Amino acid sequence: MPTLSLADLATTLNATLIGDGTRTVSACNTLMDATPDQISLLHNAKYAKELETTKAAAVIVSPGIVKSFTRAPGLPELAFLEAKNTYFAWQQAMVRLHGQRTHQNVGISPQAVIHPTAKLGHNVSVHPFAIIGENVTIGDNVHIYPHVTIMHDSTVGNDCVLYPHVTLYESCTIGNRCLINASTVVGSDGFAYAQANGIHHKMPQPGTIILEDDIEVGCHSVLERGALAPTRIGRGTKIGGHVFIGHNCQIGIGNIIISATCISGSANTGKYVVIAGQVGIAGHLDIPDFVKIGAQSGVMVNPEPNTEIVGTPAMEAGLMKRIVLNQMRLPELAKRIKELEKQVEKLSPKSAG
Amino acid sequence: MPTLSLADLATTLNATLIGDGTRTVSACNTLMDATPDQISLLHNAKYAKELETTKAAAVIVSPGIVKSFTRAPGLPELAFLEAKNTYFAWQQAMVRLHGQRTHQNVGISPQAVIHPTAKLGHNVSVHPFAIIGENVTIGDNVHIYPHVTIMHDSTVGNDCVLYPHVTLYESCTIGNRCLINASTVVGSDGFAYAQANGIHHKMPQPGTIILEDDIEVGCHSVLERGALAPTRIGRGTKIGGHVFIGHNCQIGIGNIIISATCISGSANTGKYVVIAGQVGIAGHLDIPDFVKIGAQSGVMVNPEPNTEIVGTPAMEAGLMKRIVLNQMRLPELAKRIKELEKQVEKLSPKSAG
Amino acid sequence: MPTLSLADLATTLNATLIGDGTRTVSACNTLMDATPDQISLLHNAKYAKELETTKAAAVIVSPGIVKSFTRAPGLPELAFLEAKNTYFAWQQAMVRLHGQRTHQNVGISPQAVIHPTAKLGHNVSVHPFAIIGENVTIGDNVHIYPHVTIMHDSTVGNDCVLYPHVTLYESCTIGNRCLINASTVVGSDGFAYAQANGIHHKMPQPGTIILEDDIEVGCHSVLERGALAPTRIGRGTKIGGHVFIGHNCQIGIGNIIISATCISGSANTGKYVVIAGQVGIAGHLDIPDFVKIGAQSGVMVNPEPNTEIVGTPAMEAGLMKRIVLNQMRLPELAKRIKELEKQVEKLSPKSAG
Repeated sequence: MPTLSLADLATTLNATLIGDGTRTVSACNTLMDATPDQISLLHNAKYAKELETTKAAAVIVSPGIVKSFTRAPGLPELAFLEAKNTYFAWQQAMVRLHGQRTHQNVGISPQAVIHPTAKLGHNVSVHPFAIIGENVTIGDNVHIYPHVTIMHDSTVGNDCVLYPHVTLYESCTIGNRCLINASTVVGSDGFAYAQANGIHHKMPQPGTIILEDDIEVGCHSVLERGALAPTRIGRGTKIGGHVFIGHNCQIGIGNIIISATCISGSANTGKYVVIAGQVGIAGHLDIPDFVKIGAQSGVMVNPEPNTEIVGTPAMEAGLMKRIVLNQMRLPELAKRIKELEKQVEKLSPKSAG
Repeated sequence: MPTLSLADLATTLNATLIGDGTRTVSACNTLMDATPDQISLLHNAKYAKELETTKAAAVIVSPGIVKSFTRAPGLPELAFLEAKNTYFAWQQAMVRLHGQRTHQNVGISPQAVIHPTAKLGHNVSVHPFAIIGENVTIGDNVHIYPHVTIMHDSTVGNDCVLYPHVTLYESCTIGNRCLINASTVVGSDGFAYAQANGIHHKMPQPGTIILEDDIEVGCHSVLERGALAPTRIGRGTKIGGHVFIGHNCQIGIGNIIISATCISGSANTGKYVVIAGQVGIAGHLDIPDFVKIGAQSGVMVNPEPNTEIVGTPAMEAGLMKRIVLNQMRLPELAKRIKELEKQVEKLSPKSAG
Repeated sequence: MPTLSLADLATTLNATLIGDGTRTVSACNTLMDATPDQISLLHNAKYAKELETTKAAAVIVSPGIVKSFTRAPGLPELAFLEAKNTYFAWQQAMVRLHGQRTHQNVGISPQAVIHPTAKLGHNVSVHPFAIIGENVTIGDNVHIYPHVTIMHDSTVGNDCVLYPHVTLYESCTIGNRCLINASTVVGSDGFAYAQANGIHHKMPQPGTIILEDDIEVGCHSVLERGALAPTRIGRGTKIGGHVFIGHNCQIGIGNIIISATCISGSANTGKYVVIAGQVGIAGHLDIPDFVKIGAQSGVMVNPEPNTEIVGTPAMEAGLMKRIVLNQMRLPELAKRIKELEKQVEKLSPKSAG
């Protein structure tokens, strides 16, 4: 890991330095665990108390927060890096000090199987036991890890990483700078059968799938190919592990789709939609721009743009909160109804008579 | 893709042609996107308006629907293919015009590892880096894609396809015409431990697993072997991706089990059960014939045959709908109870006194 | 399978034999299916009726249950093995009669790729097409099945089994006697991005992951590496298939985590926590010792130690049961409120006037 002065780091982070710019740091760490050669982050104001005792050399903070605490006696001075977007500043510091995973350039392994018609760009690494099929095109600076299978007629853009055991079915298109994590499958058939005479007849799935640029997909996800038109995942969308995206889905740009979410076939999302973990989205829905969907929700109707929804069936988060609070009071509400009935019975003329 | 006359296609689909049988088509497409050399489908009456403007040569429709719309002026004539089971007719048209995925016959790769005791049928393709273990039997016309592992004593029937990265643990039996998609695992151990002295002692799982004929399994599913008797998946059942079927389950024929569903150990299903996505079914339940289970349901008691259930805990769909509607009114119901209490308080003699 | 006398078996199981100790058995089976050379188990008192008719030679039972039934006439005598922990006795009998899966010692396959800097212990089996990276250390008696990828700087302890298609990302630590089932991924990146200018910037994940001793992980699970400090899975914890454990989680010892559960980043569990299937646990929670979480629960706040929780949002199981019972009565409760309103309206002076 490199050693950087706080002044240098402040420039990288586009942050305002309060403190001694000549002091050096070589790693990032939590407020609690940081040592005097490390920087830290105050991401949530409720941890501000830890500023009083952290041993970090400097902490990334929001502007103005510095005045709100008193440093514990006997501790060395603490510098601050004020940044408007503290989490982004932290990410920049992490990249500077720790870096992203590096990938060794191993060239083309003689133990890989590459079809003679496949076209590989410059500076491509193909690890042992990878398979590259007929008419496949691979861009420049791509890393193809062991046990990757790329079936015929697929295309992978520049600067991509395909981790071990990734499978691309035939005719998939992967854009530039995409990271596909271990064991993820792209381009398998949509789940569609026509029932007749007690038999489920498999519907052909000749559509393809397009991943645009700058997409990351976690481990063990399944992105189905289209039935006719291609399934499409928009630029810059980040997908977690165990995610399932059905055939024909049109996923917008910059989406965040967290682990174990299932998006049924022909559902579409707008831009910057955020979908938490274990969510289910019914087929053929349209999720508009900037919608946020809470964990484990079951989305059964189209939400309004820019709303936050949660629950099964998913509804506006504030309404759902009120419903849940009242659900927790249900045993009590039931008792109060019974009590009311008794009182009304007493008050009624018949009982009075 | 082939080019077919509408008359020829009508014969294939067992459909009644209304229109010019000499006109030819070469592909299927949606009503919206179809071009004059394509056929389309009206699967849902609510899209009937698109019949007025589609550029398709012909549309597959239910008998009688043709009279219910007026074609927009200036568009070419539209033919109809009337079929009782429109979705099956569409599947037949898709097969005729687009076909199912074809699999190149690559023979036995010298880079596959096949145990000398394994028996392979006629016309088997084994791709590079596949492993076929001791005493394995493979039928005729089977395609074994790269990175498949078949452990010892397993059997695969005729006309099967095992896609990349499929794992069969030892002693699995796969029937004829089964399609196992990428990375699915068959025959792993059931999850069972006996706790004693603070240690979870692994229960041996010597049972096996039998997949009958005509089964398709999606990507990344896990079908566990039995603890004693074999787990069994019935003929013609179709299973999606990320599905988990526990040890000892007896799954009936013709089931449809959609993505990310978990069926716990020793649960059984009857015939033609339909289980939507992300469902959980508790262990040791019996799901009778023709039951339909809605997405994300948690099934905790045995449903009645031929019913539709939904929710957690799952109950009859109509009842659940009424419950959900009332849940949405809960904040209002709570207010009304409070209001009633005030009014009754006013009416009661004590308050009057 | 071996043949054992009941006397011998009673010693193994530390059970009290009631009956003929010279009789022999060679397998375990259910009460219903057992033959006269097999033993069986009465695990649940509600199946005690099957003791009247089972053909087993002997049955493992809790002390004292023998008096509670009458054997059907004409059947051979039935012996009993009384044990305090019947399920553990059954597990011991299963191990004695059926055994755990055995793994053939295949040595180091010439078709595996092992980096020259990797260190392998004694008696290691490395199957074809496995990859062992730079600076990897493997202990003694380890079985590495086909298509396993172990990336650089990872460590695997003694007596481990890595089933086909397991991926270990770089710098993972696996303890002794761990079983990692097919296609599971250990050490992939946590899902973390800092959004700035419409771009999700990937947060480096330099942390690692430590699996302590005696852990089993099912198929297709994903255990993420830490962002800074390592993710840790405690000794003796058993994890099912399709489980997702996020970055930085500290999972305690002896946990049972069943299929398709998602534990979000930085959540911690105490010792002997039991988490049923399809559960979601929010990030940064602390689940204390001995907590039991019901299937499909969504845990959003820290539960109390030693409690049982269920539902979404998860709450104490008894409360949740009462809530669910009242939810099922909701349509009826709503009607009763309406009825009360009518009656109160009639009783109120205005209506009277």
